[in-house]
Amino acid sequence: MTQSTPRYAAADLLAFARALLVGAGMPEEKAQGVAEILVEGDLLGHTTHGLQLLPSYLREVESGSMRVVGGPEVIAETAATLTWHGRRLPGPWLVLQAMEAAAAKARECGTGTVVIRQSHHIACLAAFHRRATEQGLMMILASSDANSASVAPFGGLDAVFTPNPISIGIPTSGDPIVTDISTSATTNGLTKRLHEERGRLPAAWVIDGHGRPSDDPAVLFQEPKGTILPLGGLDSGHKGYGLTLTVEALTGGLAGFGRADPKQGWGATVFLQILDPQAFGGRADFVRQMDEVARQCHASRPARAGEPVRLPGEKGFATARQQQAEGVTLHAGIMEALLPWAEKLKVGMPPAGASG
Amino acid sequence: MTQSTPRYAAADLLAFARALLVGAGMPEEKAQGVAEILVEGDLLGHTTHGLQLLPSYLREVESGSMRVVGGPEVIAETAATLTWHGRRLPGPWLVLQAMEAAAAKARECGTGTVVIRQSHHIACLAAFHRRATEQGLMMILASSDANSASVAPFGGLDAVFTPNPISIGIPTSGDPIVTDISTSATTNGLTKRLHEERGRLPAAWVIDGHGRPSDDPAVLFQEPKGTILPLGGLDSGHKGYGLTLTVEALTGGLAGFGRADPKQGWGATVFLQILDPQAFGGRADFVRQMDEVARQCHASRPARAGEPVRLPGEKGFATARQQQAEGVTLHAGIMEALLPWAEKLKVGMPPAGASG
Repeated sequence: MTQSTPRYAAADLLAFARALLVGAGMPEEKAQGVAEILVEGDLLGHTTHGLQLLPSYLREVESGSMRVVGGPEVIAETAATLTWHGRRLPGPWLVLQAMEAAAAKARECGTGTVVIRQSHHIACLAAFHRRATEQGLMMILASSDANSASVAPFGGLDAVFTPNPISIGIPTSGDPIVTDISTSATTNGLTKRLHEERGRLPAAWVIDGHGRPSDDPAVLFQEPKGTILPLGGLDSGHKGYGLTLTVEALTGGLAGFGRADPKQGWGATVFLQILDPQAFGGRADFVRQMDEVARQCHASRPARAGEPVRLPGEKGFATARQQQAEGVTLHAGIMEALLPWAEKLKVGMPPAGASG
Repeated sequence: MTQSTPRYAAADLLAFARALLVGAGMPEEKAQGVAEILVEGDLLGHTTHGLQLLPSYLREVESGSMRVVGGPEVIAETAATLTWHGRRLPGPWLVLQAMEAAAAKARECGTGTVVIRQSHHIACLAAFHRRATEQGLMMILASSDANSASVAPFGGLDAVFTPNPISIGIPTSGDPIVTDISTSATTNGLTKRLHEERGRLPAAWVIDGHGRPSDDPAVLFQEPKGTILPLGGLDSGHKGYGLTLTVEALTGGLAGFGRADPKQGWGATVFLQILDPQAFGGRADFVRQMDEVARQCHASRPARAGEPVRLPGEKGFATARQQQAEGVTLHAGIMEALLPWAEKLKVGMPPAGASG
């Protein structure tokens, strides 16, 4: 691309996203939480799960499918656990509330677990962790959506699951280790984008409707419909399948609401657990172990010259620091899709600086 | 193979294993627990993690590296969590004790978590779940061993991790769903066995010491030493790597003891969590969801004709029922390796029936 790519100040994107959400009818505090998590997704380079989602969120608010008023209802609570009916409230805001509740329980009981049924979509899972790890806490966050299906069980042709992501944040003395993976071979977001851009996947991560492996995301959009393979693909997909079922149990199972119930439109069921190392072997010894593991990983000779071993999340935090300093680049089409919303809701576009 | 394969009654194998452990000096109750879990491994068809381990366990008892007297020491405890120093006691027995403690905490607090540092090896993770799922409880069990390393970080040549297994048991109204996976592409047990039998892996699950992918387990036993790839292999190994680090944090991290400490000989660090669905959305609704998910998986058309979709654990439970009825077949060499121990400890060999 010889064209210059616009860059935006993260603070401007945040104010823009918040203003759009408020303009659509979302109360200020919820709009702030949602906007922070979406922009954090772009900062970290998770460009399918940042502001890319905002037009869909705005449509959902407009249609009433994403509710904006009130809070979650408590379904059950113990000293260490909490189960919420999310009332289809904005997912990123619900997760931020759940993190506070889980952290308080973890400080009392060692672990704090919050399960949310009927949340709306929760955006980029990796975007939440730093708020926990900065307090020395480890967090596990997983979600599923019983309202759609694109991933088949291992050995099957019919989609049963969403990509059922699971994301873990692990404190160290430096940046946390943050892993954020779908338990399927790839995601809905990436296959949709690559299909629109007529691109190919890096490997045979999908099968067509006849069970033939493929790297072409188009097979998901043809009849008979193909499906996304479980993580591990053709030779180890039973492992991804097992992890997908685990996420399904932690979300829809514990929530008691999911695939056995009528569909309700795009949403999420959420499992969130915070573990306080202080209640186990102690915070200092936790960090001592994870620092040593991180050191050993970094010390490993690279399998390919010039490509040093990284920790999960490392590239994202480097990208975020760079974009905080130099401005955020958005994936092609994102700002274009937001322009009509800005006009409609009378919100000024964020100023764009140019960079090579 | 035209030779007839001997079959053993499960009860005879259990009595035999228990007698050998007692003969080596292990108190009766611990020997019973260890023998039950080892035989359960063979019943489920996990032949690398059943009685195959017994000669090594007996050697460890004899050398004093596996301790047999006394119980674990409490390092820390809250209402929902417990951290033990395992004092290198027999791992399967420690896990059985930990399950009781975790289940009691889960009934009070929704979840119960036990972390054990300096446990000895814990055998087949899948062998433990039924005792929890039969009570309607979900269990997550993971382990690592900081005393050895065979798995490199994604993109690296130097081993940092063990295969760091994670296993999950999920109750349904029928057999539980039980997944038991290494977060690496394959295990030490399988690569060792295939190397000895001059076999090949089903796919390129290892890399040689120069970083070249291979299906030949021999590369792990040559200089420069190769390593086992993370789950996901060459195109998705960052996901397995993230899961491996998660297991490392849940075990060595929470235990506060592991790779930053001096090696102590073959052992395990254990993370065990029991979740009581009754404390969340309710047991009936948990089962209703998981039954529906199981039904949808079974209803999926198979990708290959004649190979119906199964749930994780399904084949194992079918194998166990068949072997309970018809007798247990042991992998080649297992009984031969136990014969000298039977002679030395003056324990009679179990009677072998023959089957085609």
